[in-house]
Amino acid sequence: MKENNKLYVVGIGPGQYSKMTMEAQEVLTQCEVIAGYTVYVNLLKECFSDKDYIVTGMTKETERCRLALQSAASGKTTAMVCSGDAGVYGMAGILLEMGEAYPEVEIIVVAGVTAALSGAAVLGAPLGHDFAVISLSDLLTPWEKIEMRLKCAAMSDMAMAIYNPSSKKRKDYLKRACEIIQEYQAEDIVCGFVKNIGREGESYQILSLGELADAQVDMFTTVFVGNSQTRKVGNRMVTPRGYV
Amino acid sequence: MKENNKLYVVGIGPGQYSKMTMEAQEVLTQCEVIAGYTVYVNLLKECFSDKDYIVTGMTKETERCRLALQSAASGKTTAMVCSGDAGVYGMAGILLEMGEAYPEVEIIVVAGVTAALSGAAVLGAPLGHDFAVISLSDLLTPWEKIEMRLKCAAMSDMAMAIYNPSSKKRKDYLKRACEIIQEYQAEDIVCGFVKNIGREGESYQILSLGELADAQVDMFTTVFVGNSQTRKVGNRMVTPRGYV
Repeated sequence: MKENNKLYVVGIGPGQYSKMTMEAQEVLTQCEVIAGYTVYVNLLKECFSDKDYIVTGMTKETERCRLALQSAASGKTTAMVCSGDAGVYGMAGILLEMGEAYPEVEIIVVAGVTAALSGAAVLGAPLGHDFAVISLSDLLTPWEKIEMRLKCAAMSDMAMAIYNPSSKKRKDYLKRACEIIQEYQAEDIVCGFVKNIGREGESYQILSLGELADAQVDMFTTVFVGNSQTRKVGNRMVTPRGYV
Repeated sequence: MKENNKLYVVGIGPGQYSKMTMEAQEVLTQCEVIAGYTVYVNLLKECFSDKDYIVTGMTKETERCRLALQSAASGKTTAMVCSGDAGVYGMAGILLEMGEAYPEVEIIVVAGVTAALSGAAVLGAPLGHDFAVISLSDLLTPWEKIEMRLKCAAMSDMAMAIYNPSSKKRKDYLKRACEIIQEYQAEDIVCGFVKNIGREGESYQILSLGELADAQVDMFTTVFVGNSQTRKVGNRMVTPRGYV
């Protein structure tokens, strides 16, 4: 394996430059090529203008991975960037799978702050105890499976971070999720959501599960559902670490 | 509120300095006082030698919070450091709760890379789809509640990151957890664990659920349980993003 057949998969955090790890910043500084989805790459171009870029749209992930693997195989140190973490609903898995066809490329995963953590910091400490991370996107997952996970998380009183709570085609998914949760949790448990985490227009709201069902959220929103012990402390959301 | 009545709760990541966010590094550079548990503070003293330190042992968390709040209330910009994230089993929640008695202090939460993410990066991408984060420590949580969560996560085919899988007093807890999971998942699903993430002696192993039950883990180990789709890819653990 040559020193420069390296492909880094880098979680860059929620978007604000300073919320990236120093390791991620070092990798991006040292690599020759940066690959990523249009929106994230545009955020980086201002800071790393001397790189070659591989940019593809949202549905072109396989293509992007192939180009990144080819770039690393050709001897250029390459970084594939993902918003949030590299692994959580990110590109690390598919790259490792496709990378089996490129044994000369060493794939290195660089973790980042996923929206569950960056959004939680805005709200206070909603994930201070056991929690589940669940995406409502049924593009690659049967809705029945998503329902089962919501049900099981609620049944066992886990707090939740909910990704992809809504999109143009799935306007009522959060309402449906809240109805499932409410079969096991009280209507007044403390919930919250954060829009545009770490970006311009960041805002948050703390509200009850009943109110959450009718909240206006979009694809740039991360939703938090508390457990039975979660409290509103001032204007923050806190899930205590223990039950005693 | 004065500009310098600020108390930051800072997740410093798994231990290696470069795995901290730039925001965390900036806060630690600019604050006057750093509060934390002995072990984490010792890691920081080399890099930030010009600070006042508030150091207390592992069980003295309430005391540490009180001293940090008093420090901020006295006008010294103060940072309370946590390993991993500030909120996930961290100090953000208790500080926000105790902070109600110090309305003059502004508490700011700075997210960090929790062991679920930093450990996942070492293994590959074990948390590429929905997952649960569950601690096996029953110091503050009834064991029945922990069992219920393991059961529900397994039943709904969620991957898991398991914190505190063992301690001197709880040597058989991971085995018990694996037995519960095995009621719903096959004995051969892909699991893994990472020891000393981001520190000297970092190591990992990928193994089956059946083998995990008898694995030697300690309090510096984070355990990962795959879902039914998780695969071993080369020497890495990958949970695909979708079911199609």
